[in-house]
Amino acid sequence: MDKADKIKAGDIRTASRLIRNLEDEVPGATCTLKLIFPFTGKAHVIGLTGSPGAGKSTLADMLISSFRAKDRTVGVLAVDPTSPFTGGAILGDRIRMQRHAEDPGVFVRSLATRGAMGGISKAVGDAIHILDAMGKDIILVETVGTGQQEVEIINHAHTIVVILIPGMGDDIQAMKAGIMEIADIFVINKADRDGADKLLHELRAVLDMAPERKSGWQPSIVKIGNAFEPESFHASIDELAQKIEDHYRNLVTTERLFIRQRRKIVAEINEALRASILEPVLKELIASGEMEEMLEKLSRKESDPYTLAEEVSRRYLKDRSGK
Amino acid sequence: MDKADKIKAGDIRTASRLIRNLEDEVPGATCTLKLIFPFTGKAHVIGLTGSPGAGKSTLADMLISSFRAKDRTVGVLAVDPTSPFTGGAILGDRIRMQRHAEDPGVFVRSLATRGAMGGISKAVGDAIHILDAMGKDIILVETVGTGQQEVEIINHAHTIVVILIPGMGDDIQAMKAGIMEIADIFVINKADRDGADKLLHELRAVLDMAPERKSGWQPSIVKIGNAFEPESFHASIDELAQKIEDHYRNLVTTERLFIRQRRKIVAEINEALRASILEPVLKELIASGEMEEMLEKLSRKESDPYTLAEEVSRRYLKDRSGK
Repeated sequence: MDKADKIKAGDIRTASRLIRNLEDEVPGATCTLKLIFPFTGKAHVIGLTGSPGAGKSTLADMLISSFRAKDRTVGVLAVDPTSPFTGGAILGDRIRMQRHAEDPGVFVRSLATRGAMGGISKAVGDAIHILDAMGKDIILVETVGTGQQEVEIINHAHTIVVILIPGMGDDIQAMKAGIMEIADIFVINKADRDGADKLLHELRAVLDMAPERKSGWQPSIVKIGNAFEPESFHASIDELAQKIEDHYRNLVTTERLFIRQRRKIVAEINEALRASILEPVLKELIASGEMEEMLEKLSRKESDPYTLAEEVSRRYLKDRSGK
Repeated sequence: MDKADKIKAGDIRTASRLIRNLEDEVPGATCTLKLIFPFTGKAHVIGLTGSPGAGKSTLADMLISSFRAKDRTVGVLAVDPTSPFTGGAILGDRIRMQRHAEDPGVFVRSLATRGAMGGISKAVGDAIHILDAMGKDIILVETVGTGQQEVEIINHAHTIVVILIPGMGDDIQAMKAGIMEIADIFVINKADRDGADKLLHELRAVLDMAPERKSGWQPSIVKIGNAFEPESFHASIDELAQKIEDHYRNLVTTERLFIRQRRKIVAEINEALRASILEPVLKELIASGEMEEMLEKLSRKESDPYTLAEEVSRRYLKDRSGK
């Protein structure tokens, strides 16, 4: 069996190695991605987003159990911003969701991003393809929900779950992040805390003001309380899992799934173009020492970044003036 | 006077229009940037970062007053993630820091970012150049502190201030965001709340574990309490403003300023290269209808994004095999 066949058969070692090889830009890794691409598009991809401290990892962990109880196979991708000093995710796979480690129906990976060159969103898209080709029914993508990079990551999801907690100005947060309009389900987590009702009212008010969605899907709100009251806690987790599957069914029956798929594809082609056009140029400039020369010129103010970049562009891009 | 001269003379209308023209990609806007570039590099750029609800805007507002009391001129750039539906910043200049609107020594701008093509970090870098050429002594950049995009924005700053609040898992947040190692000053905001001492202890513990910084600068921690106790509140704001200026003096005297300048320049050239190499290709693909054709092929699974992007790259990038 070649690597693509092994991934299609669900082999965890091959999948893990491919994700790592893509991160490390090992030559040939993209070939395997091309081979598995025709076998993707079956998984339900769910974005779990919310500010740090909102409880995303715990919810992801509980959702795994809930989906597993319904016999769904689950993949989880946790996106950790990289420390620019260590070059790696600080919270790695090891300390996450360990209790599912023995379950062959669950596959959990952290994705780290290196340096300032971007590409985390592409890494997420690639990893989703791999988990999808492995046959995972559900793919949970856990990401910090603020900032443009995160909005890009979330473009890879069919169903977007935004997790809020009381007392944190989270209402305003949701609006600021521009994620309000693209959220399908809101979770009010830690709903036993002071301010949960206030948050619920504010959220309802904002949703009521929003224009009705063409899809007919009105964003749901799920309240999740304290894990120390296990009965109501587990019931609310199951409610959330059910709402998530309801949303996917709504996408399928209203043919809105095609619109979400298109959003995914737009993200994928943009990221692939960046990797094929901009990144090879950056690598050559660094390898030849020209990047360093440009930096020296800029620090001596002998030129400006705009002029230098235009010169590089003329040298690398073909002349298209005849067009 | 041409536009560059007007900006150098501090003209607010010309500066505002240039920032807007750059956002709208009006032809010729980059020319003005090139002309003002030699007159940049004098401002002290401060990144104010923290999760939504941490109180960044309020602190920025108070810092303006504190710096103005010392006769420093101040520019403020507020980075709001864009709503993908409205294409604009939701919280605009109008509702921010209105009380400084009449002060000619203060210039406040919100920056919005459009669509998924990235570029917010470049927009911030460009706007910093404009405020710098206008002669602002201090430039405050207020941004949500999590996610890779935000780490890129923060690369434009000389001094990085991370704002934390008690009781939000903010300790873990700081570590996850990978911003711990690049922060110069920590603010414990809303320090009258429960959990402020716990946060302070955890922060100190993490800082004690961190390797000593080569610069000799040990990150400071400033506690800021409740605005309803104006005396101690204002004293702590002044302390923060003083610490910020101390940090800059430390950069200058230890010659570490060059290292920060280099980080800024690396960010600027990377962003300019993206704008000159990748973006023209994307625009042509969209204008010619080829982007749409690729999206159709992908949705019919007739090809994969990696193969399509490589084909585009072969057509647009010059052959460099002879090198």
